[in-house]
Amino acid sequence: MTNPSAAMLVIGDEILSGRTRDANMYYLAGEFTKHGIDLKEVRVVSDDPDAIVGALNDLRRAHDQVVTSGGIGPTHDDITADCVAQAFGVTVDVRDDARALLQAHYDRQGTELNAARLRMARIPEGATLIDNPVSIAPGFTIENVHVMAGVPAVFQAMVASLLPNLTGGAPLLSQSLRIFRGEGEIAEPLGKLAQDYPDLSIGSYPFQKDGIYGANVVIRGADGAQVDHAMAVLSTLFPDT
Amino acid sequence: MTNPSAAMLVIGDEILSGRTRDANMYYLAGEFTKHGIDLKEVRVVSDDPDAIVGALNDLRRAHDQVVTSGGIGPTHDDITADCVAQAFGVTVDVRDDARALLQAHYDRQGTELNAARLRMARIPEGATLIDNPVSIAPGFTIENVHVMAGVPAVFQAMVASLLPNLTGGAPLLSQSLRIFRGEGEIAEPLGKLAQDYPDLSIGSYPFQKDGIYGANVVIRGADGAQVDHAMAVLSTLFPDT
Repeated sequence: MTNPSAAMLVIGDEILSGRTRDANMYYLAGEFTKHGIDLKEVRVVSDDPDAIVGALNDLRRAHDQVVTSGGIGPTHDDITADCVAQAFGVTVDVRDDARALLQAHYDRQGTELNAARLRMARIPEGATLIDNPVSIAPGFTIENVHVMAGVPAVFQAMVASLLPNLTGGAPLLSQSLRIFRGEGEIAEPLGKLAQDYPDLSIGSYPFQKDGIYGANVVIRGADGAQVDHAMAVLSTLFPDT
Repeated sequence: MTNPSAAMLVIGDEILSGRTRDANMYYLAGEFTKHGIDLKEVRVVSDDPDAIVGALNDLRRAHDQVVTSGGIGPTHDDITADCVAQAFGVTVDVRDDARALLQAHYDRQGTELNAARLRMARIPEGATLIDNPVSIAPGFTIENVHVMAGVPAVFQAMVASLLPNLTGGAPLLSQSLRIFRGEGEIAEPLGKLAQDYPDLSIGSYPFQKDGIYGANVVIRGADGAQVDHAMAVLSTLFPDT
């Protein structure tokens, strides 16, 4: 049984300009791994309609699920809903249920639901809403694409709303061993181990800090007994670590 | 005059599994911005040959420069050099100059240059080497693609080796203003400002923490006088921030 495959599309100039260090990709990757969904690809594009529509069409056709982050606020640079509608060839307009959520929220705050805020109720035709307990303005799901906010606290809340609705697979289990030898020394036995366990993913991640160097070897797989077994072999190969 | 466009390809399961939080994309984005090179797109793919070759061919055709990170070490999961050679349709083999660098390095350390380590001297035909002052094993440039290590300290050293060889443009200047009002309130005047300055990129990045909320508005452009002027207008619009 293969786990569902997923991709993420991060939309926003702030990541590409180096102003902001990504947090949502890291968060989603961890949540999907726990949920048994294989994040296969991430793309980061700027606030450019052609780039967003093109990337979205590539990703939604290649993967079971696609999550986007960013560009669904009230300002002029928030163009994600329009781009998603364009990618699917559907219309986008203010929708009653989304407007009602916002109206109730701003009424509670004593704030006007002005034209800019109303933009956040623009939902592509045929989409369903994703709950946003943090700041109310909803995300949405259309077919296999899940459109979420870029602010990390809101993104995380939306992921929590979404995950129970996604079919996961076997969670990917992992164990790691820190080996204080150069990768060049462990490469050959490690390659053989990878050949002996074709269903496992065995990765070697070198580190080098303050004159100490080595590699973290991570063994991943859906079958816990296999992971255990391969890790036992690895520990026997490098008993002094 | 338009700045050169660039893309980055991050290769590695460790990012997609959520084990490691990306650092290289964030670093490269900042360096390119200072150097006047517009990072337009980033893709993160797993250690899968088809995914790497496909993404690399897309990116190198669409952008002036492409930087890759990851997968050039000595272990079985280091397949980047082979994938790059495949993408360009050239051979890849141990090359004398790269081997000499490694041989001298391991001689100094009194370590054997074994078969695994020698893999790091495999360079696609026609490439030039990128200096690695940290751990010697070189990166390489082939046409507009620059192949670098994934370990952040090594990646950063290779970026420093590479940057003087890349033609930059006008550095993208930016100024930001922290406005303690909801995005819904500032959206309309901000949209007008963006229309008045079509050469500038004006982004709004909302924050929300401990009950305090607002937006960081960032104005970016190559023309410092224009950025100054737009920022002065913005400050006049929101004088109390």
